[in-house]
Amino acid sequence: MGARNSVVLVISFFMLFLALSSAFPRRKNQYKPCKHLVLYFHDIIYNGKNAANATAAIVAAPQGANLTILAPQFHFGNIAVFDDPITLDNNLHSKPVGRAQGLYIYDTKNTFTAWLGFSFSLNSTDYQGSINFIGADPILMKTRDISVVGGTGDFFMHRGVATIMTDAYEGEVYFRLRVDIKFYECW
Amino acid sequence: MGARNSVVLVISFFMLFLALSSAFPRRKNQYKPCKHLVLYFHDIIYNGKNAANATAAIVAAPQGANLTILAPQFHFGNIAVFDDPITLDNNLHSKPVGRAQGLYIYDTKNTFTAWLGFSFSLNSTDYQGSINFIGADPILMKTRDISVVGGTGDFFMHRGVATIMTDAYEGEVYFRLRVDIKFYECW
Amino acid sequence: MGARNSVVLVISFFMLFLALSSAFPRRKNQYKPCKHLVLYFHDIIYNGKNAANATAAIVAAPQGANLTILAPQFHFGNIAVFDDPITLDNNLHSKPVGRAQGLYIYDTKNTFTAWLGFSFSLNSTDYQGSINFIGADPILMKTRDISVVGGTGDFFMHRGVATIMTDAYEGEVYFRLRVDIKFYECW
Repeated sequence: MGARNSVVLVISFFMLFLALSSAFPRRKNQYKPCKHLVLYFHDIIYNGKNAANATAAIVAAPQGANLTILAPQFHFGNIAVFDDPITLDNNLHSKPVGRAQGLYIYDTKNTFTAWLGFSFSLNSTDYQGSINFIGADPILMKTRDISVVGGTGDFFMHRGVATIMTDAYEGEVYFRLRVDIKFYECW
Repeated sequence: MGARNSVVLVISFFMLFLALSSAFPRRKNQYKPCKHLVLYFHDIIYNGKNAANATAAIVAAPQGANLTILAPQFHFGNIAVFDDPITLDNNLHSKPVGRAQGLYIYDTKNTFTAWLGFSFSLNSTDYQGSINFIGADPILMKTRDISVVGGTGDFFMHRGVATIMTDAYEGEVYFRLRVDIKFYECW
Repeated sequence: MGARNSVVLVISFFMLFLALSSAFPRRKNQYKPCKHLVLYFHDIIYNGKNAANATAAIVAAPQGANLTILAPQFHFGNIAVFDDPITLDNNLHSKPVGRAQGLYIYDTKNTFTAWLGFSFSLNSTDYQGSINFIGADPILMKTRDISVVGGTGDFFMHRGVATIMTDAYEGEVYFRLRVDIKFYECW
């Protein structure tokens, strides 16, 4: 088998892997980002006992549910507000480079999906500015794409796509997301 | 009356019709969409008795209101979370091509208006990807325009305008929206 | 000291002022807006007694808080829905040119910050159309930038950056924001 065929085979396996693990894998993106950032953020949900450490709180729930336990039926109807530290690596205790702030909404009755509206406020030596995101988050997929709809400061007028991955999940109290931000409009 | 005058007359009536029935009709849009989709989505609001069929739930309300009846004063302050089937035609029972997921907020005390933040997650043979929307929805206008602020998959980096029309409305339990999505940036 | 040095000195002081008073001042924006609007909007929060005048209501709060008093700990977790009059000057009683509609979320436990998702619906002789905004709002900064992610009507497909300034603040009932909207994509 020639080198060229090997490459085709490897690419085929790679595409198959993508097809199995990504939401909406079909489009082959031929664009190269003009800027690229990988960041992590850490969400600790308030459960009635962890007020000091919690970075997120359930603030809305459907009838019959309460605000310290995620709702039954895949948390459908819960809205959580968050102010999560952003770090450069996957360690919750690393020095934060900014805050992820906004809301997530659990929006499906028969599986885990969320809708996200949030901003990154970055304040480090490398980056100062904000990045604004919205999009659907089918949580159980390995990777999910949401839209980067705008930015300010160092990210003035930027647009792009962010690929989200659940990097860790501990019961219903902690999760960590890896956010791979690819800007395709940079100004 | 010559043919040319007839055309002018017909166009004048058409403009008059638009002026009476659309929100913000003044701008004559000279742009042609690079992609165009018409889809329907169906919203069944949870009322305490329809848990099996409901696709949306009221999860927040102002003081004194509850979560199974839309609030008085034009539902001002209600937030609903939804996960609605998307269909190609106006039949609730057609095979869904995706889900409309997000929230709507009733935001006026003296008439019906809403604010929308939601995504279409499409998963059909024709389209795979997500489309993200936000905008004001003056519900009583025949047509309302909101922004398409981004997309992923087949709608990678797309932007556009979506024209929403209430296609059916049954009391306070069911409504169906027709969404005419015109993309002007397609990548 | 020559004229040139004076200019440098003045500019230096100006940069220092910016550095102290703005969120994310570092980027020197070399772009000129293609359209520019300055508008004010007025928010009167419902406190249980001002139903007739209120333009905003708290509709969600974390466990233990209620809906007529902003939550303790910097209002963390409160979601307010609003329908505020927009005016051309800073007078609440000026004739409105439209409505600011959407939500704000208090999202930090140890200082005042908010997350905004809202639309301007303008309906005046000068402008007819809607403008859609999202972004983080570090309230205590003198100026804060958020993203203009889309528009309709006269603002068809527009994008830009809006600089928000708290123009007045009266206890926990009234605030007025000055919004300096700079469009950089105008179509």
